[in-house]
Amino acid sequence: MTDLWNITETSFEPKRLRHFETALTQGNGYLGTRATFDEYYPGEQRTTFVHGVFDDVPVVFTHLVNFPDWTALDITLAGERFSLAEGTPLDYHRELNLRNGLLTRSLRWESPHGLITKLEFSRFTSLADQHLMCQRVFITPENYSGKIQVVSRLDAGTDTMRYQQWRWLDQGVENGLIWLKLRTLATNIEAAMAQKVLFKGGIEAEIATPDIVKMPSISATCQADVGQTLWFEKFTSLYTSRDCDNPKSEALTGLAHLENDPWDAAFTANAQAWEKEWDRCDVVIEGDDEAQLALRFSIYHLLIAAPRHDERVNIGAKTLSGYGYHGHSFWDTEIFMLPLFTFTRPEIARNLLSYRYHNLPGAHEKAWEGGFQGAQFPWESAGDGREVTPTWVPNHADRKSLIRIWTGDLEIHISSDIAFAIIQYWRLSQDDTFMAERGAEVILDSAKFWASRLEWDPQTEQYHLSDVIGPDEYHEHVDDNAYTNYLVRWHMHTAVAVAEWLKTYNAQAASDLFTRLSIDEQTFANWATMADQIFCPQENGGGLIEQFAGYFERTDVLASDFDPRSESVQSILGIEGANAVQVLKQPDVLMLMYLLPELFTPETIQANYDYYTPRTDLTFGSSLGPSIQAILATRVGNQEDAYENFMRAARADIEDVRGNARDGIHGASAGGLWQAAVFGFGGLHIEDDRWYIQPHLPAHLKRLQFKFMWRGEEQVVDIRAEEE
Amino acid sequence: MTDLWNITETSFEPKRLRHFETALTQGNGYLGTRATFDEYYPGEQRTTFVHGVFDDVPVVFTHLVNFPDWTALDITLAGERFSLAEGTPLDYHRELNLRNGLLTRSLRWESPHGLITKLEFSRFTSLADQHLMCQRVFITPENYSGKIQVVSRLDAGTDTMRYQQWRWLDQGVENGLIWLKLRTLATNIEAAMAQKVLFKGGIEAEIATPDIVKMPSISATCQADVGQTLWFEKFTSLYTSRDCDNPKSEALTGLAHLENDPWDAAFTANAQAWEKEWDRCDVVIEGDDEAQLALRFSIYHLLIAAPRHDERVNIGAKTLSGYGYHGHSFWDTEIFMLPLFTFTRPEIARNLLSYRYHNLPGAHEKAWEGGFQGAQFPWESAGDGREVTPTWVPNHADRKSLIRIWTGDLEIHISSDIAFAIIQYWRLSQDDTFMAERGAEVILDSAKFWASRLEWDPQTEQYHLSDVIGPDEYHEHVDDNAYTNYLVRWHMHTAVAVAEWLKTYNAQAASDLFTRLSIDEQTFANWATMADQIFCPQENGGGLIEQFAGYFERTDVLASDFDPRSESVQSILGIEGANAVQVLKQPDVLMLMYLLPELFTPETIQANYDYYTPRTDLTFGSSLGPSIQAILATRVGNQEDAYENFMRAARADIEDVRGNARDGIHGASAGGLWQAAVFGFGGLHIEDDRWYIQPHLPAHLKRLQFKFMWRGEEQVVDIRAEEE
Repeated sequence: MTDLWNITETSFEPKRLRHFETALTQGNGYLGTRATFDEYYPGEQRTTFVHGVFDDVPVVFTHLVNFPDWTALDITLAGERFSLAEGTPLDYHRELNLRNGLLTRSLRWESPHGLITKLEFSRFTSLADQHLMCQRVFITPENYSGKIQVVSRLDAGTDTMRYQQWRWLDQGVENGLIWLKLRTLATNIEAAMAQKVLFKGGIEAEIATPDIVKMPSISATCQADVGQTLWFEKFTSLYTSRDCDNPKSEALTGLAHLENDPWDAAFTANAQAWEKEWDRCDVVIEGDDEAQLALRFSIYHLLIAAPRHDERVNIGAKTLSGYGYHGHSFWDTEIFMLPLFTFTRPEIARNLLSYRYHNLPGAHEKAWEGGFQGAQFPWESAGDGREVTPTWVPNHADRKSLIRIWTGDLEIHISSDIAFAIIQYWRLSQDDTFMAERGAEVILDSAKFWASRLEWDPQTEQYHLSDVIGPDEYHEHVDDNAYTNYLVRWHMHTAVAVAEWLKTYNAQAASDLFTRLSIDEQTFANWATMADQIFCPQENGGGLIEQFAGYFERTDVLASDFDPRSESVQSILGIEGANAVQVLKQPDVLMLMYLLPELFTPETIQANYDYYTPRTDLTFGSSLGPSIQAILATRVGNQEDAYENFMRAARADIEDVRGNARDGIHGASAGGLWQAAVFGFGGLHIEDDRWYIQPHLPAHLKRLQFKFMWRGEEQVVDIRAEEE
Repeated sequence: MTDLWNITETSFEPKRLRHFETALTQGNGYLGTRATFDEYYPGEQRTTFVHGVFDDVPVVFTHLVNFPDWTALDITLAGERFSLAEGTPLDYHRELNLRNGLLTRSLRWESPHGLITKLEFSRFTSLADQHLMCQRVFITPENYSGKIQVVSRLDAGTDTMRYQQWRWLDQGVENGLIWLKLRTLATNIEAAMAQKVLFKGGIEAEIATPDIVKMPSISATCQADVGQTLWFEKFTSLYTSRDCDNPKSEALTGLAHLENDPWDAAFTANAQAWEKEWDRCDVVIEGDDEAQLALRFSIYHLLIAAPRHDERVNIGAKTLSGYGYHGHSFWDTEIFMLPLFTFTRPEIARNLLSYRYHNLPGAHEKAWEGGFQGAQFPWESAGDGREVTPTWVPNHADRKSLIRIWTGDLEIHISSDIAFAIIQYWRLSQDDTFMAERGAEVILDSAKFWASRLEWDPQTEQYHLSDVIGPDEYHEHVDDNAYTNYLVRWHMHTAVAVAEWLKTYNAQAASDLFTRLSIDEQTFANWATMADQIFCPQENGGGLIEQFAGYFERTDVLASDFDPRSESVQSILGIEGANAVQVLKQPDVLMLMYLLPELFTPETIQANYDYYTPRTDLTFGSSLGPSIQAILATRVGNQEDAYENFMRAARADIEDVRGNARDGIHGASAGGLWQAAVFGFGGLHIEDDRWYIQPHLPAHLKRLQFKFMWRGEEQVVDIRAEEE
């Protein structure tokens, strides 16, 4: 029977190195560490990212900074350097326990000279103390006695996609601890790390702490007899000036008060913290082990990326697990990942939404640069909430030309996506304090942006939004994207309602806010009128909503016309080519029908599902597509499509079906998978004052259980298939 | 009295760190190492470049790769890390001996705790064995006894302008030696370094060689009594797969056979090699110590950058001494630096010219990409001779726009500059073998390019070259630049003459070459006709040659109109602004008159000198300007201008008058300074079968002595001012 809590690797495969580094990433909502090995291998991406620690880079403006690695151990066994690149690994087993975040590796290694050593490595990033990382190693020579040397270190020379972003400040050795102090080059964030190694089990080791500049090290040498086990534990602490005033002293203190059996104490605290998380967030699936494991894997990866003590950071599209999208955040957070937190961990959802509130200045800057008013949220956002979508990227086919990336200019729907997520959070939590202090401001300030952005056409007497990109990014520079226009209409009406509510809830706060934003009753009246005048495409004769003006005139081809294939339709046709045909990168009109179902009849949803589904590149288009498609499939009662797309999302990172898991976890797909389970299979619906379920379990599922928070109270939904 | 062979620094000045790193750079024509300190300082650029070892980088395509540093020493004195950033330096003295390449530093350091230690450091990169680098250190505790720890290491984590370009391959410890094997990421050049530390003078040191991955280290700890001197010598070897098949074994062997007193033996060999160089290349100036020292400084920097055993590398605009221009080579080599070698070290000139011959494929590619025939040499050239001028660079003022660099497209005169340098080398050396085997091919193949590039105008019945950049880069997209058109005419006539000569010299070689290039007698006849029909602007009424079509219609301002200033006229006016006025970045028409003086009467030269000089930005325009301006000044008998511009070039790097010496030595200015001394003050002229001098010594000079090779024979010119 498959273990439903463990991701395992049973052989050392250098070619899948980076895929497993991503999949087995550990973290605690403060930092994330890719699962590179203790020892070095070519092609590895040895990476620890810390939320909010960005620095400037060329082309993509800003990048999460790779921290000095805390895991490295150079082990020399009787003169031979331990590396699986040489010799033979025996009984290799690596495993990530999703339930408690522990990563273990055990193996026996036969060296090139025939010496056999048993090695067992464990490590975790503590969920109980987000600044603490722990390792434990057992080394047993099986057929020889000899000298064993272990070197641990803090390496200031680490790189971020080959770029060095640290300025070394200082380092030292104190009471057997080594420490290192650094600062990012452009953003001037100071970081300090300390490290300590404890030798256990009675073997006498000779310890040295050479003060090598930029690489303080701890080196231990001992003599081990055949069968004797060398056992040591290693602890690393990490603080930055984003968390505290004096990262160095915090890092030292963090290790100084470790107790007698620090590993046991730290691990117990970590496991307890994890237990609490799973108690809130687990979704039980019976009857499909693959689906069960994949869903837990997805929830795990969102939990380790979720900031628990910081409301000025967001989750990047690839979480903290890889270099894809440089740590930048998109609508992926609000629309795909956030519902898991909104429904199970509202404290975390509040932190993530507060990030947008704190970064209103960046949104003002973006609106102002475009000649607009209010707050326009950036398509890609990082440390300071400014727009950081790359504008020009190299064209490897032609040295003299560059490729213009338009999403930062044109994919404007994100401002309404954020408003939508705030309303969803508010509806679930009834957190009026947040709404009054932060949520309302974000919604009103971005409504102000829309009022300045909408284009009045005296011919049609309607407002339009021309030259945009909708969720379907295969089509750039389009006019009146249905998703965008409907969301903006919803947003402006909602803003008026929120203003009304705020006046009632706290008249003084309302007055202060309206003054600050220079808005008044006349503004709200205008917004309501404008919202009604926004052109929102209606059903044509066949019941279809046109994705954007002129979409139906594009060449009509289906995604399957390009099968078999192993790349996206855009890769095959090129940017211009894909723009000219109807194939979508991901659901667009259907996405609208998912978010605002009350606006559409079941017949309309069915008609649009039937039309757009075969035209959507669900295999190699956007990884955001399959989970949403699965939910829509349950809405129209198509069990087969629903399960197929659910599993497509489920396998994105575990099976690496898109071939890019090496770049990091597909955070939106992971969040979408939870939504597909809960809103799709579970059929959870929320109305203003109540929730209800309309389950659509795939036929082979025996049980689906999930929990969520409804206005401060935990709700448990346990759906069991009827006995056959 | 000033020492005329030493560049000295008498205080530790953190603000001038990078300037002195450049100025005191050491090298041997194989590698160059900036003069960072043994110990680390913030803001330093710890750099060793090796000729020909480039790797890919964004924006500027390719960059010389920074090698693992061989100089680093982390010294801990009785528990305090030695660093001048703390405590007090006493009796500080650093000195580069230009005569033998030795860099020494002596000081007494009072630690924060009041411990005083005398330290003496020496190092050199051997000119006798280009793969060997040597260091010697003496450490004497003056007022305490205590533990002294020294750590030396090879660091694979080194960066190139923050970019990591090395893939670690392997490392080890063998017989007390540490070694490291690496490979560049894109260009796949393998490199190996080995290092050894010898303790001398009888102090017992405890040596450890921790096998830290990516940073093999040698750590030595000893107890020194007050007044006792710890003395050690350190040797590093470096080989790459460009030099040999097995860099690792060569690096190990290179250190294995060091003799009993390796420092003494290695230094003696190095000093002897330097003596030979200076015997050939020194220029003696009496009566002006500053000029004397600056000239030797310039010659030194060209000698340490000059490839002696490699004909597939060139010298970058900033030699091997800094990051400016990324190690790329320009016409700076052929027109500014090469004459020193052509006249004093023809073997080196031959290597440098052979680089162009070997890289004809890159020149074919460039011509082909532009739709032309033959060989068009790239404006910027690096490892493989392809065009590597950046095309688009970031615009820091506007995130959404980029700046287009046009020199790679338009500054086409370099193909004729190379032809000019070949003819100059041939004329001096009479190296017919080189000419027949390589030189002729370069000249003819690039003449083929010109024949396809020239534009026929049926109106004027002349050939034109439109949309170019001449030597004066303030003016882009100009038509019929006088310098370019005259040089091309000269080039095509010369090509015809070279073809004629080759037929006589070696009929078979000529026939083979003509077949290979698909050229024949008809081609030569066409070239001769075309050359005569190239539009070459003639004197106007005032005796002036117009720099390009329409130049005289640009707004007429003088460079001095912008004084006082500390930046270039282009920085003040912007790219478009500078393009609109007459101010030049550097001599252009005057440059033409320098290279092809036989085409112009003294009166014409005088008229153009008078017109263009006040319009040339000699202070903050191109660093290539002053030396040429100095020579032209001697031609028109203007002693004052000549000396002023000579000293302007002389001070570029020693005094850092342009504020950018930190980016590396201005190689063209250094080479131009030698030309200004020899061709300007010395008045050396070369005609087809003879040489003669027309000295123009500044009034205060007592003596100018230089040597050069004339057809295999050394010539000594010793000019002494008449007694007053």
